[in-house]
Amino acid sequence: MEVKKIENKCPFTEAMELLSGKWTLSIVNTLMTGTMRFNELERAVTGINTRMLARELKALEANGVVYRTAYATVPPTVEYALTEKGRSLGPVIQVIQGWAVT
Amino acid sequence: MEVKKIENKCPFTEAMELLSGKWTLSIVNTLMTGTMRFNELERAVTGINTRMLARELKALEANGVVYRTAYATVPPTVEYALTEKGRSLGPVIQVIQGWAVT
Repeated sequence: MEVKKIENKCPFTEAMELLSGKWTLSIVNTLMTGTMRFNELERAVTGINTRMLARELKALEANGVVYRTAYATVPPTVEYALTEKGRSLGPVIQVIQGWAVT
Repeated sequence: MEVKKIENKCPFTEAMELLSGKWTLSIVNTLMTGTMRFNELERAVTGINTRMLARELKALEANGVVYRTAYATVPPTVEYALTEKGRSLGPVIQVIQGWAVT
C-alpha cells in the first residue's frame, strides 16, 4: 500500500499534499479531543470506513502528524494521538470551521 | 464526468469535501492574483496537468468558488476568476501557508 510520503516541494504544495485527503483534517480535528482507539475514531468520524481510516492514519503517521502506541494486551490495543505537529494544525482547522459557516 | 457536488452535511465536513482536492487550494491561491486563462493557470500551478485542472475547475465552478467567462473570439477564449466565496478563502490559505513554514 503506497503511503502518501511527501518529497520536499514548495511548503504550501507540501502542506496541501498532506492536508488534502478527504478525511485528513476531520481525523486530526477528532484527535484534538485526545488519544483514541481505532474503533472510537471510526465511530467519531462520520462517513469514514475502516479501510479509509487505516490508510489515512498510516499517511498521518508517516508524515509525523499522528503517533501510534500499541499495547501488548490480549487482544492487542492500539491508540492514536496527535504529535506536536498535529496539534499545530489547530488554527488551520479553526479558520476552516469559521469559513465553513460563513 | 462526475462533478464533486456537495450535499448538505456538517459544515466542516462539507468544507473539507470542497477543499480537499490535492490542487484545489493551489488553484484558488493562484487565482487570488486575478483573472486567468486556462493555460496561464496550468503553467502557474506547478505539477498539475490539463485533465486535473479541467476537473478541479469544473468542481470549483459547481461549488461557487470560481466563475468562468467565455468570449466568442476566434478561437474562443475562456477566463476564470474567484467569486466572493472564493476570495473568502484568503484567510484559510494564509493560515495553511503559515503552518507550512513552521
